[in-house]
Amino acid sequence: MVGGVNDCVFCRIAAGQAPATKVYEDDTLCAFLDIRPIARGHTLVIPKRHASELADLDAEVGAHIFRAGHRLALAIRRSDLAADGAHLVLNDGTAAFQTVPHIHLHVIPRRHGDKLSMAAGLLLRRPRDPQTTAAAIRAGISALENEDETSAEKGSKG
Amino acid sequence: MVGGVNDCVFCRIAAGQAPATKVYEDDTLCAFLDIRPIARGHTLVIPKRHASELADLDAEVGAHIFRAGHRLALAIRRSDLAADGAHLVLNDGTAAFQTVPHIHLHVIPRRHGDKLSMAAGLLLRRPRDPQTTAAAIRAGISALENEDETSAEKGSKG
Repeated sequence: MVGGVNDCVFCRIAAGQAPATKVYEDDTLCAFLDIRPIARGHTLVIPKRHASELADLDAEVGAHIFRAGHRLALAIRRSDLAADGAHLVLNDGTAAFQTVPHIHLHVIPRRHGDKLSMAAGLLLRRPRDPQTTAAAIRAGISALENEDETSAEKGSKG
Repeated sequence: MVGGVNDCVFCRIAAGQAPATKVYEDDTLCAFLDIRPIARGHTLVIPKRHASELADLDAEVGAHIFRAGHRLALAIRRSDLAADGAHLVLNDGTAAFQTVPHIHLHVIPRRHGDKLSMAAGLLLRRPRDPQTTAAAIRAGISALENEDETSAEKGSKG
């Protein structure tokens, strides 16, 4: 099987053959809510083409994954999730607690004063209203796009 | 001051005005050993141009930082540090425990069975022979470069 679609749950998600609450997608990657979130809005960014670890991942695809993670971190700050920051985390290899053997970048929203809820999140890892959460993130992405367009218009007038 | 060189310790390191054990450098970024490493080989990748948080970071510079982190993770696997994996971690904002207000990507080597030493590392955060560690990482980077050249030669013959 090209890309190991049958064996790998993240390949199946990328191919639309397994359910996931996607918040962003392009030709190279997709981003969807972690089903066991540490915090509300915890999102995973994966390459569509299977790569088990960083050793198998094309450098430019890796750079694009990070570009998307960067953008998502900005989007969740603008969203109703009102994050004050985020962790971007990529665990490479089982020695680094990589649990699904398809490389993924975690984007974990943080808020000031959320240490107790983060600790609870680490223990419980329960989803919290994924549809509303995903809608908020998508709205944050749209807000960013509008900002880009506005600054591009200003630039072209300048 | 352009780039806040005077105020920011990471700007001073990037400019060669503060000491650091560098393992890699190019026009855009530099990578150096964390002075309070969680594990041996714990490296930071920073943009040379000051950016406090992801909101201030150019998307392409961010992608390049990740490209370098990806490469370092591969290099430490090939080095005498003999890592089995790595965490790539970027903490964006004080809410996410970002301690130095100049964006930085952590590359933290992991080895199978290192949970106890990692726990100790998190508590102690003591450097362990930085010159030897940096030399090992640089050798890992050179090993990667040799592999690239070999595969490029094979490719041109193929």
